[in-house]
Amino acid sequence: MINTEKQSGATSTITSPADREIHIERVFDAPRDRVWRAFTERDQIAQWWGRGNKLVVERMEVERGGHWRFVEHSADGVHGFEGRYREVTPPETLVYTFEWDGMPGHVAVDTTIFEDLGDGRTKVVSTSIFHTTEERDGMLYSGMEQGLNQSYAALDELLAKQE
Amino acid sequence: MINTEKQSGATSTITSPADREIHIERVFDAPRDRVWRAFTERDQIAQWWGRGNKLVVERMEVERGGHWRFVEHSADGVHGFEGRYREVTPPETLVYTFEWDGMPGHVAVDTTIFEDLGDGRTKVVSTSIFHTTEERDGMLYSGMEQGLNQSYAALDELLAKQE
Repeated sequence: MINTEKQSGATSTITSPADREIHIERVFDAPRDRVWRAFTERDQIAQWWGRGNKLVVERMEVERGGHWRFVEHSADGVHGFEGRYREVTPPETLVYTFEWDGMPGHVAVDTTIFEDLGDGRTKVVSTSIFHTTEERDGMLYSGMEQGLNQSYAALDELLAKQE
Repeated sequence: MINTEKQSGATSTITSPADREIHIERVFDAPRDRVWRAFTERDQIAQWWGRGNKLVVERMEVERGGHWRFVEHSADGVHGFEGRYREVTPPETLVYTFEWDGMPGHVAVDTTIFEDLGDGRTKVVSTSIFHTTEERDGMLYSGMEQGLNQSYAALDELLAKQE
């Protein structure tokens, strides 16, 4: 595991510790409550999740059993993503399903933990579990890492702006 | 594996061959095209899926990427179920996700194969895959077998009526 604790707003650590999982760690230079809001409020997520592309938040019911659906308008087309919240425990834990319209019925479960580093920074630890290794690998080789780093860079900017 | 081929409209064979799977086989006394319709047409499924209870088919878009949502009104309350079609290949293969409102974000993938037995009967083979063994066991011990047998008995009746 690469130590990202001394970095801020730099790189995500992406590993695949089990054959159906992806594990991601990233430190943000903002307090935990602030980062939690960026992940759970509609007008906040619209500003970073789409990596600079227009993002339409069609549905975002942040409670157990609630649905979400985001549509990203990028240069290569329109991409819908959706899922359902399994657990919402502010400001610590968010568990939801994740599905891309391009691979309908292929569903990952994402668990995101927000860890207060005690110095005004927050570590975000995400684990995705897939039904099969093939689905996990499909996600890993889909350009996920680049997309994620772009989203998280946009989130860095949002957090810096609004402190 | 119990041989169900000589039975008709009797018992489902339920096995759990892998630690995240449930495998179900059942023979119906009707041609494959007829059974396919019973699984894929809104007014048909409303007559058997709810096991005699009122079933409201809120959404049923039988095509790749389409959504479904059924609400069953039973003596113990109102239960919603939903998912999305991954593959629709008439009259042979139906793959869709399955989620019960009571356990939101816990998603199984169901693959149903319709096998023409060549004598006017159809074998329906369903495989469910879960993200974890715990979720699989939760389904197995939820009264699934009884519910399934009630649904399939209602389907037997529907198929007999309309031949």
